[in-house]
Amino acid sequence: MTQLLRVQNFTVSIDGIGAGEDQTLDNPFGLDQSRLMEWLFATASSPVRTGPGGSRGLDDCFARDFSHGIGAEIMGRNKFGPQRGPWTDHDWQGWWGDEPPFHTPVFVLTHHERPSFTLGDTTFHFVGGDPASVLEKARIAAHGKDVRLGGGVTTIRQFLDADLVDTLHVVVAPVRFGHGLKLWESPDELRDRFHLEVVPSPSGVVHHLFWRK
Amino acid sequence: MTQLLRVQNFTVSIDGIGAGEDQTLDNPFGLDQSRLMEWLFATASSPVRTGPGGSRGLDDCFARDFSHGIGAEIMGRNKFGPQRGPWTDHDWQGWWGDEPPFHTPVFVLTHHERPSFTLGDTTFHFVGGDPASVLEKARIAAHGKDVRLGGGVTTIRQFLDADLVDTLHVVVAPVRFGHGLKLWESPDELRDRFHLEVVPSPSGVVHHLFWRK
Repeated sequence: MTQLLRVQNFTVSIDGIGAGEDQTLDNPFGLDQSRLMEWLFATASSPVRTGPGGSRGLDDCFARDFSHGIGAEIMGRNKFGPQRGPWTDHDWQGWWGDEPPFHTPVFVLTHHERPSFTLGDTTFHFVGGDPASVLEKARIAAHGKDVRLGGGVTTIRQFLDADLVDTLHVVVAPVRFGHGLKLWESPDELRDRFHLEVVPSPSGVVHHLFWRK
Repeated sequence: MTQLLRVQNFTVSIDGIGAGEDQTLDNPFGLDQSRLMEWLFATASSPVRTGPGGSRGLDDCFARDFSHGIGAEIMGRNKFGPQRGPWTDHDWQGWWGDEPPFHTPVFVLTHHERPSFTLGDTTFHFVGGDPASVLEKARIAAHGKDVRLGGGVTTIRQFLDADLVDTLHVVVAPVRFGHGLKLWESPDELRDRFHLEVVPSPSGVVHHLFWRK
């Protein structure tokens, strides 16, 4: 079986923006996250749902698929935290509390060394190097399962530029930010290398499913 | 976590027909199965795919979801084989060869006793009794995971009548058979008890996602 590198549930605005430019401790996305992620939070399988209820339609099928067949994640440093430069302390362990929603090894891209640590059943490793070498590490850790490319925008673009991404599930939410970090000007930019299916959801978001030609 | 009873990837024609009336050893569906199941066979995750390739769009997301989070299946006797009445021999072990695509315990509904047996990582049990008692057995065997209701038409209707089904994913294929076993006259029949999302696929099938109100 091929081990794929998959982007899952990555959400951008109509104008292609996935994060703001001013990330802070109180504002991980640097913009109004709830307006982007509302579609996910409304589903029965949302990772932040604590009680029963929630929709079990199309959006929920994608919410469930987030972790299905995934054995490791690669994420950019800005997805892990708001710090920049060398690690000044090791108290920061990500935004997710004691039970991060990954449940696999996670490879955090950084130029700055830091020891690995484990929270719940997620282990964070801090790795430098080019995208291909990081992907190789993640593939080994995934034990034959697929690797999820977790974002953010800069990380996804970096792996797209290196032509390492096999499938992308990008959700376009009905909101316009005007400025921020752009994944694309238009999803059509990827059509030369990927098949694309565009699937509108009754919730108002539009699912974009890309797979390598 | 709630253990759901889920129908997954069950495919009917535009006129609601999921099987013919004349099932035989050579024709498990009793009608032209390829016209119903073409959408599934075209996906990368199709259970009958032996090589690489296949689509990774919307239909594939549902193909992948077939087994995700499932710990047991319940199926009608006609899904298991073309025999009727008491088992005259035990040589028949289903249509699926040495590696059935279920990979869990499977409970086959029958009034006629037969010993359980295992093929690959699938174990078939033969059980009588009303739907609620069969579901209880399957839930225990599923160890906290969901139970899939595998069909056929008669079995799904029986469990719907007993109000035991939590979610249904029914695929309507662009073919008309005219006669056969009908799941419904129209999907609207289930709207009193279920939410419904109708999602057309670029492949030509229409996915119907029901979940309990």
